[in-house]
Order: sequence, then structure tokens, then C-alpha cells
Amino acid sequence: MTDKQHWLPITRENIQTAHSLVKPYIYETPVLTSKTLNSLASTPQTADALRGTPFEGQQAAHPKINFFFKCENFQRIGAFKVRGAFHSILRVIQIKGEEEVRKRGVITHSSGNHAQAVALAASALSIPAYIIMPSISIPSKIEATKGYGGKVVFSGSTSDEREEVMRKVQEETGAILIHPYDHPDTILGQGTAGLELEAQVNKLVSEDPRLSVRKSRDGKGYGLDAVITPLGGGGLNSGTASFFSEPREGGKKIHVFGAEPSFQGADDARRGLKAGERIPIVKSLTIADGLRTPLGEIAFGILSDPTKSRGVFSVTEEQIKSAMRLVVERMKIVIEPSAAVPLAVCLFDEEFRRIVEREGGDDGWNVGVIFSGGNTTIEAVSQLFTIS
Amino acid sequence: MTDKQHWLPITRENIQTAHSLVKPYIYETPVLTSKTLNSLASTPQTADALRGTPFEGQQAAHPKINFFFKCENFQRIGAFKVRGAFHSILRVIQIKGEEEVRKRGVITHSSGNHAQAVALAASALSIPAYIIMPSISIPSKIEATKGYGGKVVFSGSTSDEREEVMRKVQEETGAILIHPYDHPDTILGQGTAGLELEAQVNKLVSEDPRLSVRKSRDGKGYGLDAVITPLGGGGLNSGTASFFSEPREGGKKIHVFGAEPSFQGADDARRGLKAGERIPIVKSLTIADGLRTPLGEIAFGILSDPTKSRGVFSVTEEQIKSAMRLVVERMKIVIEPSAAVPLAVCLFDEEFRRIVEREGGDDGWNVGVIFSGGNTTIEAVSQLFTIS
Repeated sequence: MTDKQHWLPITRENIQTAHSLVKPYIYETPVLTSKTLNSLASTPQTADALRGTPFEGQQAAHPKINFFFKCENFQRIGAFKVRGAFHSILRVIQIKGEEEVRKRGVITHSSGNHAQAVALAASALSIPAYIIMPSISIPSKIEATKGYGGKVVFSGSTSDEREEVMRKVQEETGAILIHPYDHPDTILGQGTAGLELEAQVNKLVSEDPRLSVRKSRDGKGYGLDAVITPLGGGGLNSGTASFFSEPREGGKKIHVFGAEPSFQGADDARRGLKAGERIPIVKSLTIADGLRTPLGEIAFGILSDPTKSRGVFSVTEEQIKSAMRLVVERMKIVIEPSAAVPLAVCLFDEEFRRIVEREGGDDGWNVGVIFSGGNTTIEAVSQLFTIS
Repeated sequence: MTDKQHWLPITRENIQTAHSLVKPYIYETPVLTSKTLNSLASTPQTADALRGTPFEGQQAAHPKINFFFKCENFQRIGAFKVRGAFHSILRVIQIKGEEEVRKRGVITHSSGNHAQAVALAASALSIPAYIIMPSISIPSKIEATKGYGGKVVFSGSTSDEREEVMRKVQEETGAILIHPYDHPDTILGQGTAGLELEAQVNKLVSEDPRLSVRKSRDGKGYGLDAVITPLGGGGLNSGTASFFSEPREGGKKIHVFGAEPSFQGADDARRGLKAGERIPIVKSLTIADGLRTPLGEIAFGILSDPTKSRGVFSVTEEQIKSAMRLVVERMKIVIEPSAAVPLAVCLFDEEFRRIVEREGGDDGWNVGVIFSGGNTTIEAVSQLFTIS
């Protein structure tokens, strides 16, 4: 990554610059809508669904929600992570020069989407990429990473063993670390999904007369009222929060929310932000495997600013699965469990739903949801829904 | 359906007219591309894959294929069937008048996508719809049909029992039959998917500089060379074949192919067309459950004309599953098994692949594939891939 002296402020303007850097290398993924999901989200939950929650016996919220799903599951490598990976490597090239970076290469340790993102981005820019993966990784993930052009180096499965192997490869090659989330270049890169989403939604509501969104008096419709993204290390969520931090034309504020799994303490961001202290370690085996990471330091700083983040909400494993099922069976698209977490918040979190009811009123809110990725297999999905 | 005296010739012009009739009620579903699937289809099969086939020991075909997937899985009710249903009901209204049709209602017997299509179309046009379903139907299908506004009437599960119940309801109500495939109005309606596909592909190849399709010298690219669709009762395939029957500007011919499962004789169209005689009964339990129907009489006539159909190919259950897995895991979209059959032909049928190699040469072919529907469940998909 670039050294601290070259760090850029994480602002809307720098996300726009990041977008012009990465644009030639990534897809502008589509934004989809779904009448079925709008209707489900705009129906109060049953008394049954609230049993055993703090909202038991209370009247269920009745928000009106129009969804706009930003489909990063259709992104290159099947996840938004290529945005941060391309931006980080392009920034390193800007600072250190292409020749040096090509000689040294880049390195990361990951067994998930970030590994594939770095492998693809490096390969597209003709730079060697060393990907440290535990030798017990699923063969299909190893093959995929190799397929995108990464040099896979195996390690033991503890984080110490991985760090050790990484240090060794770095000593030998001088390879430059590409961090999965805790760096301004990564966060600026991930923020570009929000930039595209806003522009696409503005275009959609002004063009499509059949879209069931509330309309302004000139018939052009309104854009987004809120955006919600998954929250693991916090790169995507803090990038999104930074992009939407300033009010839009006419003073309108677009609120940004984060969504986490609650299982086995994976809601570290929610708890840490509440306590005013970051929780540095998470040991959760939530099905939302992309969100098992603790919130990074830089993201913690950004999300502690209430003008940037409106809050973080968490949902149960069953709620994540219900949301995922709706996306697969009703919208007919494939998302990984982590990507279903924000939709689960919109459908099932009464606190979130009360905010929308209160602030959106009869008009409701246009809510942008980032479907962060779609990397899963038929076997993994089958297993998820059989074990329950 | 409309009586024989009102039947329209099944021509390109009448498909255009059908399109302007149904357009306000249906989605223009997106056309997607996939570099991964292009690359897989453009790689020769292994010697291993050809073992046990008539092509064992021969050199595998080496076609170059660029896919354009027309995503009718994103259509209303999740399948192309709404095109034919809306067109059939709108035509009946044209002939008999709205008042009479509203009084009598429409009727069909089906447990699949056609039932839901008729229920939705009738409800959108404020006409009662009686849907005869076997009482042993999957509850979710019954609920879905009711959800779209259909009045579900239960029957026994044999076709005699269903006909009996249908006759009774028709006697009582005067409800007008909406046939799932064997009628010109249905076929003209289904043909509108091909109409949209052609226009969308022409737009895509002229606009997207990154699309990996062969380009003409003016840089505008070429449109479709061929289209392949699933083939059950033949409504979609014969409608498509009729739409593309005449050469395009400059004399270019767009070839239309059909794709069937071979399991337990479900390749009735292929066999019947070869023998010159329609096979009226199919008893196959192929996983491509939308294609268990025998080819209809009108479609048989159309597909017997070699200027309309270039041929029908069939694939095994395993090949259908492989194709379906690629779509789910690589393209991240959900299709039902029937919709995977044409892609399976493109990937695995040596005879088809030889045609593309021979006629497409180094430039290759731009092949339109109609993903006919996406109505399945996580449980159904899990079961499909566990039983193997």
C-alpha cells in the first residue's frame, strides 16, 4: 500500500478521482429493483416474528421501502473487492512507478474475495501477485485464485503461520502488501460502488415511468434516501459513508447504515461504536463468512462520525438465510450470505424499520442496498439450508 | 383462444404487432454476456468428455462462440410464458370484446409457469382466471398461482381427471381456454422474446467497445448469427424460428435451433422431425420439467420448414446440470433446469459445435440463448445436485 505520507483524505472528491482511475478495469454493475421485495419490506412483521425480541408485544413498524440493489455479485471476480484492489495497486504505481512495482510485485493473505481481487488486478496490470493461502483452503478457491493469475503460496492455517510465510516472501521479493480494508486507498476504491449507485438511481427514477418510487412534482422522482451495506472490516461501509457524507443539492442528506451478523459476536462494529472503543478481535463462524473480520481502525474513525454513519444494525443467522432465500428465489440472482445481511436488516430489524417509518412517512424511503458479492457454490448453498 | 377463422399467419410482422400489444404488460428483460462462458464454449471438449458418444476418438470441434443471454428468468412470474398468455387473452378480447371475456373468464390446466402466467395476465386485465391444478401440486405453486390472482380449482392428477374438471368449470362459466403452446396467438406472443433479443444485441454490439464480439469494418460489430431456445411444446422455439425466418438487411440469415432433453424420450421433437411425423405422447421425467410436453401440431409444421429451423439437438441430464451449475456459479443468476438446455447444447453437443466451427470459422458466431425461466427453489436445486 502507499506509505502514510502519501495517504489521501477520504472525501467525496477523492472517491470521484478513484472512480476515474478504476473505471477502465471494472464493470459498472447493474442496479436492480424488485416489486416483490418492496412489498415484503413495506408490510409489518407479524407478532410471531417479534416474539422473543425486545419488540415483543409492541406494534410492528410499518415503513415504506423502495429498494435499489447495486449488484456487485455481477462484478469482476464476483465481488466489489476488485474496486479496492485496483485502486490500491494503481495508487502504488502512481507513487512508486510502474517499473518498481512490476519488479517487486504485490502480496496479500486471504482465502476469500480479496485474494482473487488482488490476483486479477495485478494480472490485468502485468504485476506479479503473491497470494498466501492456508494449504487447507477449499481447492476451488485455490484454483480460482490461480486462474486469475495469482501465484499461490501455501501456509499453515493460523494467522501467525500466514504472517510468517508472508514475511518470508516479502523478504525474498520486496512484494508490496495490499491490505483488504484498513487503508485509505482501499476505502476510496470501495466507495466507488456508492458513487455509481447514486448516479444509476438518479437516472432510473427520472427515466422509468413504471418504477414504484415516490415522485417529485416535476415528475422526475427522487433519488436515494439511504444506503445500507454489509460491514466486516469496514472498507465498503466507510467508503460509502464518506461518499454520502455531504448533503446533496437542495440540502438533502443520504443516510448510510451498516449491517452485520450478530452470531458469536460478529457484531463487533455495532458494539464497539456504542462503547466508543474498537473491538480488535472477532472469533465468529457466522455464515456471512465475508464479515467475520473485526472493524478496521480507519473505518472505526469514519463510522464514529455521526454525520457519516447513521448506525450499524445486526441480524441473526436465520434472518440472513431468509433474506438470501428471497433474493435467490424471487429475484433469481445469486448472492453470498454476507451480501444478504443488509436486506435482512431492512426486512427484520424493527429499530431500522421504525427509523424508515418515522422519517420516510407515507412517501417512504428509496433505499440503496449493496449486494456485495455472489461467490458461493450450489453445494455451499445446499448445505446452508439443510443444516438449519 | 381465438377461433380458427380469426387465426393470424405466424409471421415476423404479426410478431411485431403482438409485441406492441403485450409491451405495456411485460418487462423488456436484460441481455447478459459472460466472458467465462464464451471462453468455455470456445474450448474443445476433452477426449474424455467424448468417450461413449458417437464422437469418441474423433477430434473435438473447436468453435468460437459469443453468447447473448436473453434473461426471461427475470420476466414477470419468472418465465417467458407471460408473453403468450397476455397476447392470447388480449387477442380474445379484440375478437370477443372485453365485456364478454370479463363475464366468462379464462381457463387453463397446468401446474407450471403457464398457470401463473394466465393467472397474472388475466388479473392484470381484470378477467377471472380458473386454473385447474392437481390437488397433489406443490403447495408453493398453488400459493403462487393464487397470489397472482388465479382461482385454483383442484382435480385428480391424471390428464383425464383434469380435462373432466375443466369441462365442468367451462360448462358452468363459459370460461375460454388459454392453451399453453399449440395456438398461433401463443406462438406469436412467445416470438416477441426473439424480437427484443435481436434489437438488444444490435444495440449492445454497436455501443459497447469492450464486448468481445467480432466487429465489422465500420467498427459497429455484427448482430446475431444464431439463436437457440428450449423446446417442449414448441411455442417459444417455433415463435423464434418464425421471427427470424427471413434474411436480415444485406441478406444475412439468423439461424434458429431448438434444444431438448434426451432423457426417457423427451427428445420427441428431434425424433419426430427426423421421421417426418410428430410424436404425440411423451412420458419422461427429465429434470427439465418444463420440456416434458410433446411438440404441438402447429409448431411441428413450422419446425418442419428448413428455412425456419436449422435443427433440434438434445442433451443428457448430466449435461443440463453442468450447464445449470455454470450459470448459477459463474453468472450468478438463477435459472430452472429447462432454461439450461440450450446452453448445454452449445457446450456439449459435438454436432452443433461442428456447425459453428464450420460456418462461423475464425470469426465465430454470436449466439443468442433464451434463458426461458427461473422458477425453482433452493430445496429443488439442492436435491437435483445431491441425487446425481
